[in-house]
Amino acid sequence: MNTQNAPFAALVDWGTSNFRLWLVDAEGVILGERQSADGMSACAADNRFATVLEDNLQALNAPDDLPVVIAGMAGARAGWLEAPYVETPTALSGLHLHTVSPKASRKVFILPGVCQKDTGPFDVMRGEETQLAGVVAGGIASGIICMPGTHCKWVDLDDGVVKRFRTAMTGEMFDLLSKQSILRLSIPQDGDHSTHEAAFDAAVAEALSDGFSLTTSLFSIRAGGLLSTPEPNEAASRLSGLLIGAEIAGMRQFYASGKTVHIVASKSLSALYIRALTLAGAKAQSLDGSALVRNGLFAAAQHLFVG
Amino acid sequence: MNTQNAPFAALVDWGTSNFRLWLVDAEGVILGERQSADGMSACAADNRFATVLEDNLQALNAPDDLPVVIAGMAGARAGWLEAPYVETPTALSGLHLHTVSPKASRKVFILPGVCQKDTGPFDVMRGEETQLAGVVAGGIASGIICMPGTHCKWVDLDDGVVKRFRTAMTGEMFDLLSKQSILRLSIPQDGDHSTHEAAFDAAVAEALSDGFSLTTSLFSIRAGGLLSTPEPNEAASRLSGLLIGAEIAGMRQFYASGKTVHIVASKSLSALYIRALTLAGAKAQSLDGSALVRNGLFAAAQHLFVG
Repeated sequence: MNTQNAPFAALVDWGTSNFRLWLVDAEGVILGERQSADGMSACAADNRFATVLEDNLQALNAPDDLPVVIAGMAGARAGWLEAPYVETPTALSGLHLHTVSPKASRKVFILPGVCQKDTGPFDVMRGEETQLAGVVAGGIASGIICMPGTHCKWVDLDDGVVKRFRTAMTGEMFDLLSKQSILRLSIPQDGDHSTHEAAFDAAVAEALSDGFSLTTSLFSIRAGGLLSTPEPNEAASRLSGLLIGAEIAGMRQFYASGKTVHIVASKSLSALYIRALTLAGAKAQSLDGSALVRNGLFAAAQHLFVG
Repeated sequence: MNTQNAPFAALVDWGTSNFRLWLVDAEGVILGERQSADGMSACAADNRFATVLEDNLQALNAPDDLPVVIAGMAGARAGWLEAPYVETPTALSGLHLHTVSPKASRKVFILPGVCQKDTGPFDVMRGEETQLAGVVAGGIASGIICMPGTHCKWVDLDDGVVKRFRTAMTGEMFDLLSKQSILRLSIPQDGDHSTHEAAFDAAVAEALSDGFSLTTSLFSIRAGGLLSTPEPNEAASRLSGLLIGAEIAGMRQFYASGKTVHIVASKSLSALYIRALTLAGAKAQSLDGSALVRNGLFAAAQHLFVG
């Protein structure tokens, strides 16, 4: 821990499976950090939220009166204390106006999630809104933001306001189908995890074509494994291409206008999305996501503690 | 066991999870039957196929020289002995020309599956071809046959010939999504299993509409559970409607010409498919599937043992 600067706040990204904490000074410089597997799932049963937070703060010798800002699943209904969703359209600079504060020995603020009710189909996000606040803090106030993962979020961001968004279950479907469905018999569980580019591209093109049917095309992965001898990484790449292609086909409303899609994901996943979006005729570029949550939390802390 | 008529053959439906055997006379009258959980999965590890078959035959006092006809997963690559797929287009009256015979103390014939390679996207069936032979034996030689289940088969049958077919993973997706995905948190695992008709119909209509995206609409089930208070059977009916609707949308090629869709399924599942197909503007009716496999096996036995 850097002791030259005074701690300004503790910032916590509290997800379903992971806990991450940063101590920062008033400039946002990191003075110390902690991370563990004490996510919401691990803390909810015994309501260990307060203890986990305090233990981690003490491990960094944080002052007793240091305030804390939290984003993510700690604010879910099954979390520490529910921080109700803010409805779209909503300005990301106003997230701090909707925090909740659980009982604790210090000031703790949990940021809200965002929901869509009246401006489009029902949808929710919790945690991503703080990443989006980090995107805005980084200078991108308008554009299409695509956040791949277990549940991929596509967001129409306009002058710092989340206008509308949609979620696709792409990552979760990939896990379920590749590990637990009949397709697992045609997808090697270890070995070559590189992308078979021809198989990926063909699957994306298939998913973008008229009359595409996801549940039917998926079964062809199994049939292909029985009727031919695919290369080791071919079936997984076809599955990935069908699912990402189906997602991109369903999100045309976001990029049909020609707006650039900014992708927040790991380098390899980002490359797949750019590849697929290019096949769909969209403009796409990756956006460094490594500090987004922390930047979003810091922006909220500045609003809360500086004003 | 009825001893008035002489046994003509033993007919076996050997699936992944179940074993079912009938002793029939030369008219197809059932003289005795057995069923157990000794499906392919239970028999493959120790290669217990011959023993399971013989034990069940002896329990029915079957003559030592009684021949046996088998359909289903016993003929898969991981089964007793692989019965290679016959390619489409293929006449169902000719399945007996492609049997394989494993080593056994009596004559045993395993019927082949059917595959699609050159006449359409890769696809496979194993077991359903024998049900289809039963459909033909029952007097329906032409039409669209829809066989819902774990992996739903849609078949274009023309004068007893399987011209083309497609598979949708609808049943398996319903199981995975309702029990293992995030959606399980919004779908009561017990309680009211009746269909919420309004939710089902709305989901089917959504799936049939332009720009439908399955993986995105699926997540709205979770969002709906968080943002509203659905009735107990509403979320499951919406999931069912989205998946069946997506299947039906993807199978338009089969019924676009106006041909009637004959549905082979349980009464309740058949009712859902008829409801959804009617919403899609298709003609549909249910087809009694209770004796189809046995009838198809019996037709093959007649070809093999009578000529």
